[in-house]
Amino acid sequence: MTNTAFGLEIFGTDGAARVGQLHTAHGVIDTPAFMPVGTAATVKGMFLDHVRSTGSQIILANTYHLILRPGAERVQRFGGVRKFMNWDGPLLMDSGGYQVMSLAKLRTISEDGVTFASHIDGSKHHLTPERSIQIQNQLDATITMAFDECTPFPATHDVAADSMRMSMRWAKRSKNAFEPRPGYGLFGIVQGGVYADLRAESAEALRGIDFEGFAVGGLAVGEGQELMFNTLDVTVPHLPHEKPRYLMGVGKPLDIVGAVARGIDMFDCVLPTRSGRTAQAFTRFGPLNMRNAKHADDARPLDESVPCDASRNYSRAYLHHLIKSEELLGLMLLSWHNVAFYQKVMADLRAAIREKRFAAWMQTFAAEQAGGDGEAADD
Amino acid sequence: MTNTAFGLEIFGTDGAARVGQLHTAHGVIDTPAFMPVGTAATVKGMFLDHVRSTGSQIILANTYHLILRPGAERVQRFGGVRKFMNWDGPLLMDSGGYQVMSLAKLRTISEDGVTFASHIDGSKHHLTPERSIQIQNQLDATITMAFDECTPFPATHDVAADSMRMSMRWAKRSKNAFEPRPGYGLFGIVQGGVYADLRAESAEALRGIDFEGFAVGGLAVGEGQELMFNTLDVTVPHLPHEKPRYLMGVGKPLDIVGAVARGIDMFDCVLPTRSGRTAQAFTRFGPLNMRNAKHADDARPLDESVPCDASRNYSRAYLHHLIKSEELLGLMLLSWHNVAFYQKVMADLRAAIREKRFAAWMQTFAAEQAGGDGEAADD
Repeated sequence: MTNTAFGLEIFGTDGAARVGQLHTAHGVIDTPAFMPVGTAATVKGMFLDHVRSTGSQIILANTYHLILRPGAERVQRFGGVRKFMNWDGPLLMDSGGYQVMSLAKLRTISEDGVTFASHIDGSKHHLTPERSIQIQNQLDATITMAFDECTPFPATHDVAADSMRMSMRWAKRSKNAFEPRPGYGLFGIVQGGVYADLRAESAEALRGIDFEGFAVGGLAVGEGQELMFNTLDVTVPHLPHEKPRYLMGVGKPLDIVGAVARGIDMFDCVLPTRSGRTAQAFTRFGPLNMRNAKHADDARPLDESVPCDASRNYSRAYLHHLIKSEELLGLMLLSWHNVAFYQKVMADLRAAIREKRFAAWMQTFAAEQAGGDGEAADD
Repeated sequence: MTNTAFGLEIFGTDGAARVGQLHTAHGVIDTPAFMPVGTAATVKGMFLDHVRSTGSQIILANTYHLILRPGAERVQRFGGVRKFMNWDGPLLMDSGGYQVMSLAKLRTISEDGVTFASHIDGSKHHLTPERSIQIQNQLDATITMAFDECTPFPATHDVAADSMRMSMRWAKRSKNAFEPRPGYGLFGIVQGGVYADLRAESAEALRGIDFEGFAVGGLAVGEGQELMFNTLDVTVPHLPHEKPRYLMGVGKPLDIVGAVARGIDMFDCVLPTRSGRTAQAFTRFGPLNMRNAKHADDARPLDESVPCDASRNYSRAYLHHLIKSEELLGLMLLSWHNVAFYQKVMADLRAAIREKRFAAWMQTFAAEQAGGDGEAADD
């Protein structure tokens, strides 16, 4: 472990967009950054060498999943998630709040925390802010997330307010439970649904507690891109300029680009790997459904602009054959390509911000995504 | 394509075992060689870089599967199987005879060939020696296999004799259909069930036709190791010394070692990759069932003696976790490790033959396989 201080260095801005580097105990992350999701201590269908080779510098793991299997104490005995899975870069852990709400059965929420039954074997578990933070500490998360309730969408103003305020009390308890270490950070999570006043109140509350970074939670839960962007517009201005900002669980390429334009620095999403397992390939000219018979004789690679073997060295015809034959290699190549595509987008947008041409780049990117390959009907 | 003449160079022998190199248009193969199986133009669950890194120098593909999907003409348009799948080394193709018998539906065998229905979509196909060889030529197989009938086990002497003699007439037709090219070879396949006189008759018939190599077919079909070894004992002496000998579809590590002791040079088997997908790991001290809970806290890697990341850099506990969580990475790592283990065995036995200590090596290997890790009950 190095003794690097945790913190964001901003190299430049272009409008609200920022480009920089986040320094951590386990390595430097170029921002805006996309973080592949390694829920159960594996980025699904990918070797970590390939995750690294795409330019990924930080990955996610999930408190909820690891508590249930293989168990937090077991992973701790192996030196934490990073050592357990062989990842030597920075790791961000989800606090488990979101997954308890979306996956667990028979959950009971109280001021203390959440009691729930495992979606795997029905076993009973109790998670509190203190317990979640303790586990993330034990599992050697470079970035620990505060324990929160992800307010569902839609929610009335009253429901969103009550939920957000409990999350803010939990944020304070999370902060108290966090064990500061050089190069490690704790992020607070802004809630408040789609209500501007609640988002502002939440952001201010978190600033008052003080965190190493600020996440925007409770979005990408069905509200749609326009409401999501509107909510970012009324949230981000309340976050401190000098700290990293993380939009949780987002998203499609154009969601990410639009959020970067609104000042977000970090993203995570299962989409590139999940799409890889459902035969979707993201490309410069929009997504392709590799099950489609039109690819059967297409000698072109997926996307030559992406610097990745999976993107450049295999014909669409071969990938289509693998998918039709239900061969694992098809999922492996598409997952690898999709993560590489996402990281190429991030590298391109970082360069565009650095060179103060982000708006023009974004316009070109959106136009190309709209279907230059005649693939729009695929999506 | 180089202009290398196809042929086996024998560096040394130890008893009946031989060590050498097979020269082909697409590269040199150290023998005895294990050939990973790439049925549908992919070694299941593996990237070709990893296949190569294990020391694999030649892989298999299957005429039967590729006819059905994606279609032989389509693969031919892409320059053959090697170009279609991105493999730049030698490729051996199965003639389809075995798969027609074991997989296809509604098959009718006549002197002309076999009519069958696809196991995928029921479509009707007709395969003859001429058609099989033509397809293998078109698909750029470095080594083409004669079209034969794999005699089932058990079979009476009469049935085995009739089946073998038809295969010998098909072998002659295969030879006539084969288009000789420098560095390419056609292998005949010895049949005759477990009957010494029939195996001798078949071997002599093939020698009369003349091939670049000689395969022993119709074994590993349920007869057991002892009968298989007995059959090799009465077959191999009838094969020419200077040509490569290939035992088809074999087998477990000790099957391979025993067959090498009987003068076999080449092997193929789905076992390392198939076992990888069913959570079995081959190791120096015998196979492990990675589903077994006893691995849950085991920090040891699978087998440090195998020079492969998958064998050395991941704890058994982590692999157990991946398997229990049904994560693709578990299958990917086990498949990779298993192929690497097989290739380590081949490298070790080649060195032992070269140094005239094969019998002693074999004894140690068999003793270690018998369960030095207390794992015998796993198998």
